[in-house]
Amino acid sequence: MHILWNDQIVEREEVKIDIEDRGYQYGDGLYEVVRVYNGHLYMVEEHLNRLWSGAEKIRMHLPFTKEALTANLKKLVEIEGIKEGKLYFQVTRGIDSPRNHALPDPEKVKGVLTANIRPYERPVKKMEEGISVAVVPDTRWLHCDIKSLSLMGNVLSLDEARRQGFDDAVLVRDDKVTEASAANFWVVKEGTVYTHPDGNLILPGITKKKIIELARELGIPVKEEAVCEEELFTADECFVSGSLTEIVPVVKVNDHVIGTGKPGEITEQLRNAYIASVDAVCGTSEN
Amino acid sequence: MHILWNDQIVEREEVKIDIEDRGYQYGDGLYEVVRVYNGHLYMVEEHLNRLWSGAEKIRMHLPFTKEALTANLKKLVEIEGIKEGKLYFQVTRGIDSPRNHALPDPEKVKGVLTANIRPYERPVKKMEEGISVAVVPDTRWLHCDIKSLSLMGNVLSLDEARRQGFDDAVLVRDDKVTEASAANFWVVKEGTVYTHPDGNLILPGITKKKIIELARELGIPVKEEAVCEEELFTADECFVSGSLTEIVPVVKVNDHVIGTGKPGEITEQLRNAYIASVDAVCGTSEN
Repeated sequence: MHILWNDQIVEREEVKIDIEDRGYQYGDGLYEVVRVYNGHLYMVEEHLNRLWSGAEKIRMHLPFTKEALTANLKKLVEIEGIKEGKLYFQVTRGIDSPRNHALPDPEKVKGVLTANIRPYERPVKKMEEGISVAVVPDTRWLHCDIKSLSLMGNVLSLDEARRQGFDDAVLVRDDKVTEASAANFWVVKEGTVYTHPDGNLILPGITKKKIIELARELGIPVKEEAVCEEELFTADECFVSGSLTEIVPVVKVNDHVIGTGKPGEITEQLRNAYIASVDAVCGTSEN
Repeated sequence: MHILWNDQIVEREEVKIDIEDRGYQYGDGLYEVVRVYNGHLYMVEEHLNRLWSGAEKIRMHLPFTKEALTANLKKLVEIEGIKEGKLYFQVTRGIDSPRNHALPDPEKVKGVLTANIRPYERPVKKMEEGISVAVVPDTRWLHCDIKSLSLMGNVLSLDEARRQGFDDAVLVRDDKVTEASAANFWVVKEGTVYTHPDGNLILPGITKKKIIELARELGIPVKEEAVCEEELFTADECFVSGSLTEIVPVVKVNDHVIGTGKPGEITEQLRNAYIASVDAVCGTSEN
């Protein structure tokens, strides 16, 4: 397995992460996951735009250009020869020794990039059967728009749901549904699709934005408005979205069956439109 | 420089952190900083108790006993020959490959411990002159009682204050003062000392607990009650506390001079009592 390590592609074993990398001691960094379809890095520009926007928010200097990073990521995908995959990359604020909370001078401490690609297939079974979610309080920080490596809040909320026997968590803050533990969350009510507006409480999903475009093309009304916890239980349909997840129906919220307990019609329409739009860009693959 | 790496003491260069260590990808781990005085690990038991309590909260299995860890930490301090120092250690949930948000089976994935000690001296200048703090919104997660490696919220709040020209941040959530960016915060008003009660919004400071004991011995009234932002500006005295910081006076909050702009009387009383209590346990050192 090869890793893109800063601007070099090396064998996994050659990568050495320092104990005083700020990623390791402070979760001080950002990440992205790009879906690779048929060898193409789907919407990679949007992912890089979000990475750059996050870096600005956390005042981190990225020690490469978008063009150079894109070229290196493509090279990694090619070397690994993976057609259908998930491409993970993260950048930390770099090695800052001795450890110090204050942000280091970016002239002296350079960010550390690592990237890898692994095979990944569309989660067809989940798409056909749907998943269950448990309502879990959203106790994360107030900058969820930043795709930060400080992910303990997300990880624990997923675990909370899993321990109760559910597939994922639907997070609720101040009675409002924000998102899932690592995906945007959607509710369909009387033909209209609702999802939380962008802002500091959710990640501005790239798939979310695409779905809104597709819904508009299909003439399905979309409102970026948060729904209350109570409205979840009487929703006609629910689904989650993300770069890897695409669109996966949610058929159970706590003990409440959603709709008929099967993937809903609007969810299916959007899912088909999403897959068609991927195919239009990347060509049809074996998936 | 030697590092305690799991149960081995090795040269720094020998330590290899994996790219898929959950500490590096999720900030999924805990840390502690113990002050070493005159070669003694001050209140190490209390730090280990907090580590174990944090591990329980995040459902992490610690792959060693308190006794074994204490023995190894002491060995590290001895090998490095540091009498006055700061001993940092962290435990992550371990190497989980391929990356997966869900918590791994602790039977298969073992936590990774790293520890180092560096020379450290009492911050005498700060103690004598006091520091300035800026009010910064507390946007951290709602489990601040866990001394987690997901520290981006802390790091950014400190940076916010530093960029405004202050030494540290005093965090305010819902109009209540919680703590500093990495220390507990205290306000003195008409002879009574106030600090935020333990709970999910602040770290249960070991130094905080000790100060409360000392204040009671000295007959100084202490209330674990949160003060409002406005009350900061008219405080008679303010100070911060922590294992490394001990007690450092705060003489300016935003543009408001606190008291006379010099360390206050009660702050000084507590600081002297704290130092005396350290000396009583560890013996007098050069500091």
